[in-house]
Amino acid sequence: MDTKLLLSHIELELQKQVSRLDNRRTRSFHEMLAYHMGWIGEGAGPEATGKRIRPLMVLLTCLAASGAEGAVETWRSALPAAAAVELVHNFSLVHDDIQDNSDRRRGRPTTWVKWGMPMAINAGDALFVISNQAIISLKENYPAEVVVQAAEILHNACLDLTRGQFLDMSYEERTDLGVDDYWPMVAGKTAALLSASCHIGALLGGADDPKQEAYRSFGHYLGLAFQAQDDILGIWGDEALTGKSAASDLLEGKKSLPVLAGLGANGKFAARWKQGPVRSAEVQELARVLASEGGYEKASDAAKQMTDLALLSLREADPQGEAGEALFELTDRLLKRNR
Amino acid sequence: MDTKLLLSHIELELQKQVSRLDNRRTRSFHEMLAYHMGWIGEGAGPEATGKRIRPLMVLLTCLAASGAEGAVETWRSALPAAAAVELVHNFSLVHDDIQDNSDRRRGRPTTWVKWGMPMAINAGDALFVISNQAIISLKENYPAEVVVQAAEILHNACLDLTRGQFLDMSYEERTDLGVDDYWPMVAGKTAALLSASCHIGALLGGADDPKQEAYRSFGHYLGLAFQAQDDILGIWGDEALTGKSAASDLLEGKKSLPVLAGLGANGKFAARWKQGPVRSAEVQELARVLASEGGYEKASDAAKQMTDLALLSLREADPQGEAGEALFELTDRLLKRNR
Repeated sequence: MDTKLLLSHIELELQKQVSRLDNRRTRSFHEMLAYHMGWIGEGAGPEATGKRIRPLMVLLTCLAASGAEGAVETWRSALPAAAAVELVHNFSLVHDDIQDNSDRRRGRPTTWVKWGMPMAINAGDALFVISNQAIISLKENYPAEVVVQAAEILHNACLDLTRGQFLDMSYEERTDLGVDDYWPMVAGKTAALLSASCHIGALLGGADDPKQEAYRSFGHYLGLAFQAQDDILGIWGDEALTGKSAASDLLEGKKSLPVLAGLGANGKFAARWKQGPVRSAEVQELARVLASEGGYEKASDAAKQMTDLALLSLREADPQGEAGEALFELTDRLLKRNR
Repeated sequence: MDTKLLLSHIELELQKQVSRLDNRRTRSFHEMLAYHMGWIGEGAGPEATGKRIRPLMVLLTCLAASGAEGAVETWRSALPAAAAVELVHNFSLVHDDIQDNSDRRRGRPTTWVKWGMPMAINAGDALFVISNQAIISLKENYPAEVVVQAAEILHNACLDLTRGQFLDMSYEERTDLGVDDYWPMVAGKTAALLSASCHIGALLGGADDPKQEAYRSFGHYLGLAFQAQDDILGIWGDEALTGKSAASDLLEGKKSLPVLAGLGANGKFAARWKQGPVRSAEVQELARVLASEGGYEKASDAAKQMTDLALLSLREADPQGEAGEALFELTDRLLKRNR
């Protein structure tokens, strides 16, 4: 499966959708969006755009569900939906960076750092609006009933996204948390949009309801597994592989899966965590304590369980052809597993 | 026309739509939205909800276009669209208040003052998502083609809203502006959503394309006329009538229509304006200077012209029955004219 070809068309479709703002009076507004999307400004290019996993999922599930072996019309028709999910993801990143006070994203200054908070809020809003316009522009290629279904799936995922964001922010001040509080947050923040991407792809590929449900479920568990895996690497990861210093999530006070498992265990790790921010000097020892109190094992077990559920759902979806193969490969790559 | 009945059903529909967040884990998230909408918390009630002009416009244009004399099914079916436009309006207010650093709205502390900026951004995002869900929920009552059209109209208005917001913020630092820069800003900030409200109402009322265009145009010019009028009152208004101190827009440095006319005239007013913020002590004299340099007359002429265009469009739309009468009355009330 030539995912490079798909990715280049995804990029063109994104640029076409965002060009709605490329008019005389709003040229510098358009530039904010084009900068955030990674197309212009310092450091523009593949490093700055991100991996475009979600739109790729839309196209691959569409192809794999349709069974039409890489038929060009099949994935081209679905491009506006692919753009829509990526625009939602990027809207949430622009607002996230403001909310988290993050000054770098993918190695570049964030939108609010460059244009100020008020402009960045509006730039995020515009990306969100354009995602809505993109999903409705499917009407050129599909019956109105299908467009309405696709829009509904996307909007429901967006509400889950705001729910996840709310939970994440509301956890900041809390120490009375456990693993049970993790999944609703991650279901919103990470899984909802991946799930919607696979669901919409299957819908546009002409899958029947049970197949759509299998693809939706695949995306959901893939998102949960990916986040759990990412959380483990954020504490015990190989710096050479992850590109960020191990245990950095402990320094940042992130309410990740191992941390919530450790808080739930209510042992030495929890006692230290409740005392306030972790310092660099103690981070290795604290990671060891967390592992000794079951934080690593619990998180690994959960990540494995979610990975199994994702693969079970994907096999149930029975994805066809090269796109189907590509979905299994992408899953392995994301979850850093060897099949 | 019993607009009170319509307004009470609008409120119920809004509450139903927002209740999507009223779950165990997101109860306090739901409270943020319910507070902003004016339903709960200090000062809750009619003063806090605002006038719900936009959703009322949806229902009245729907009824007036359908010709069905106040038929209950006609306006009840359109309620989700009415809720959608009001939710868009309120999403923009929540983000506006953050962007403008405003700590009061309708006499109450703003959402960001109560819950902090990060939570308020997310609350605004959620109102926006729910407006999308509301417009798609029209599918229960209308063919999918109509739902897609309604969603498209709403999304296009939302992009105009972000354009207007961008222009407004980008004008803050600029003094090289004139009246020509006013209309694109106000077309986005005020007219786009009123225009969409009337357009969607006409669509749902079964109006043909020329009629829809007449209603759309009515909403557009109504928005421009209303804002121009509001800008005049913001400088030379009767404090007893407007409820805010006259000339307060000069103190706030608002790039209103008279101010842009004054800057365009490039006389004494412009010279003073360019020197920086206006002080209370000089505000009455500056308002007088602005009037003497044509600021009042130019703005009044423009407001009158837009009012005439709004009424021309409304007559062209030929609204039927009591709802049609109510549309003329509402227009008069909004534009403070005597027919």
